[in-house]
Amino acid sequence: MRIGVVGAGALGLYYGALLQKGGNRVAFLLRRDYEAIRERGLKVLSPSGDFHLETVEGCRTPEEMGTVDLVIVGLKTFANNRFAELITPLVGKDTLILTLQNGLGNEEALASLFGPERILGGVAFLCSNRGTPGVVHHLGAGKILLGSLLPAARGQAERIAAILGAAGIDCQSVADLRKARWEKLVWNVPFNGLCAITLRTVDDLLAHSASRDLVREIMLEVIAAAKAQGLNEVIPATYADGMIAFSEGLGRYRPSMMIDRIEGRQLELDAIFGRPLTAGMEGGIPMPQVRMLHTLLDIATLAR
Amino acid sequence: MRIGVVGAGALGLYYGALLQKGGNRVAFLLRRDYEAIRERGLKVLSPSGDFHLETVEGCRTPEEMGTVDLVIVGLKTFANNRFAELITPLVGKDTLILTLQNGLGNEEALASLFGPERILGGVAFLCSNRGTPGVVHHLGAGKILLGSLLPAARGQAERIAAILGAAGIDCQSVADLRKARWEKLVWNVPFNGLCAITLRTVDDLLAHSASRDLVREIMLEVIAAAKAQGLNEVIPATYADGMIAFSEGLGRYRPSMMIDRIEGRQLELDAIFGRPLTAGMEGGIPMPQVRMLHTLLDIATLAR
Repeated sequence: MRIGVVGAGALGLYYGALLQKGGNRVAFLLRRDYEAIRERGLKVLSPSGDFHLETVEGCRTPEEMGTVDLVIVGLKTFANNRFAELITPLVGKDTLILTLQNGLGNEEALASLFGPERILGGVAFLCSNRGTPGVVHHLGAGKILLGSLLPAARGQAERIAAILGAAGIDCQSVADLRKARWEKLVWNVPFNGLCAITLRTVDDLLAHSASRDLVREIMLEVIAAAKAQGLNEVIPATYADGMIAFSEGLGRYRPSMMIDRIEGRQLELDAIFGRPLTAGMEGGIPMPQVRMLHTLLDIATLAR
Repeated sequence: MRIGVVGAGALGLYYGALLQKGGNRVAFLLRRDYEAIRERGLKVLSPSGDFHLETVEGCRTPEEMGTVDLVIVGLKTFANNRFAELITPLVGKDTLILTLQNGLGNEEALASLFGPERILGGVAFLCSNRGTPGVVHHLGAGKILLGSLLPAARGQAERIAAILGAAGIDCQSVADLRKARWEKLVWNVPFNGLCAITLRTVDDLLAHSASRDLVREIMLEVIAAAKAQGLNEVIPATYADGMIAFSEGLGRYRPSMMIDRIEGRQLELDAIFGRPLTAGMEGGIPMPQVRMLHTLLDIATLAR
């Protein structure tokens, strides 16, 4: 299968590398890593085993890449206004588009440009960082819950999940993509938000009772908003406890939004806070602590 | 009148300098500024007129200072556990103690050591920063609302207010010191807290509708908690609007807690957040946004 990776950050490079290692023809749309990858290939450093792809197809423009069978979108969500420009040249009659981006609204934005029937969404539970150009650090996890935007297209989601699975990616197809998105938000909203505003790691937040309580309260606000979305199945409040227990294992983990803030990069505030807040409000769930966190991050990072 | 200033930061140095200029004999308990002030005196740079005191009595220990008529306490509140050590040598039979510190609990802590009848409290609305050693920058304002801890001691508060007034300090005696403390908190809690966590100045917070709303909501939480304290007179909700209008005039002002955080100094979290939260809880007012702000600042600044 010919696969095009658009938005080759840590996530795009990592999954793309696994897919190429698994026998697919993968092309990466590259900016920062273009020269390094053309010269030295792509190296993945991982607790599951390091590997090195000596020859990697890197493209500077989507026109150079041309049409593919599957587009994997790993762009930061604030670049979603570039979907048409970056993805249109990759889309042929039967091309599927899989977004592995964070937060809400990505599938819908792609559907409005390319039609809903070809849109898949994957919720990735991946801990990874970019290293020097041409190097990706896989820190842990990596599971993907994969679903189709249209329930009728579930067969396509299962087919792509099988291709990812064959490449060694822990990938499970899900009937309710929206529920999976909201479940991811239960983690992303408190940990990305609180770590980014306090510049403290996950273990620091969990080590103190007041901030641990705050993490849990924010999770419960997200769960309440999810419930108001009329998902096929409700996320139980105990899901928060499970997420906290899972997070205990992450230790000194720095969520991506914290790293982005430290490095002065733009944050994905709309996808992770703004859209869930709007969805909550529309469902009659005000989410006061999420709203305050959003406001603080917005002010803390606004350009002067 | 012989006056001893304990805690000679920007506030202690500024008011002490005015009192000396006004004819009082003022001694300062000094650490950082000791050498500079012994050599070059104390310089105040102010929009109301710069002045320079060539000879200033600086002491390294309270024993060296000995008893005074009035102790002015300008210590950071997290140093309140040093009250006994620093103030006892200054207190004679008729010595009065005036705390100009921030937040709640300072008068009570002094009263428990030195008796309530000699304790006065002043709520200072002062914008000042320390400059190089021996230099204080007065940026604006400077009014003090001064009251006695015991209502019966109001005469003493009026006498000290008159002495401060004679030295050119805008000082007004108040019947209800607790109300004045809570009124100051209406400003301190949102602006010190939000500026310190976001590292943005007062004008940035007021320029954006979401953070401006957050400022106002936090003010209303403080006002509700104040109401539950059974003050002689209720602080009306419109007080928040007045405080916001006042704050518009501060421009790019950096509240002291923001500066302290930037410079890596300890923050006065207990006096400004912890004690008001406890008082609110005891009055049945939970203050959720103040609580969240306290938690964020606590985590952001905890020693590792």
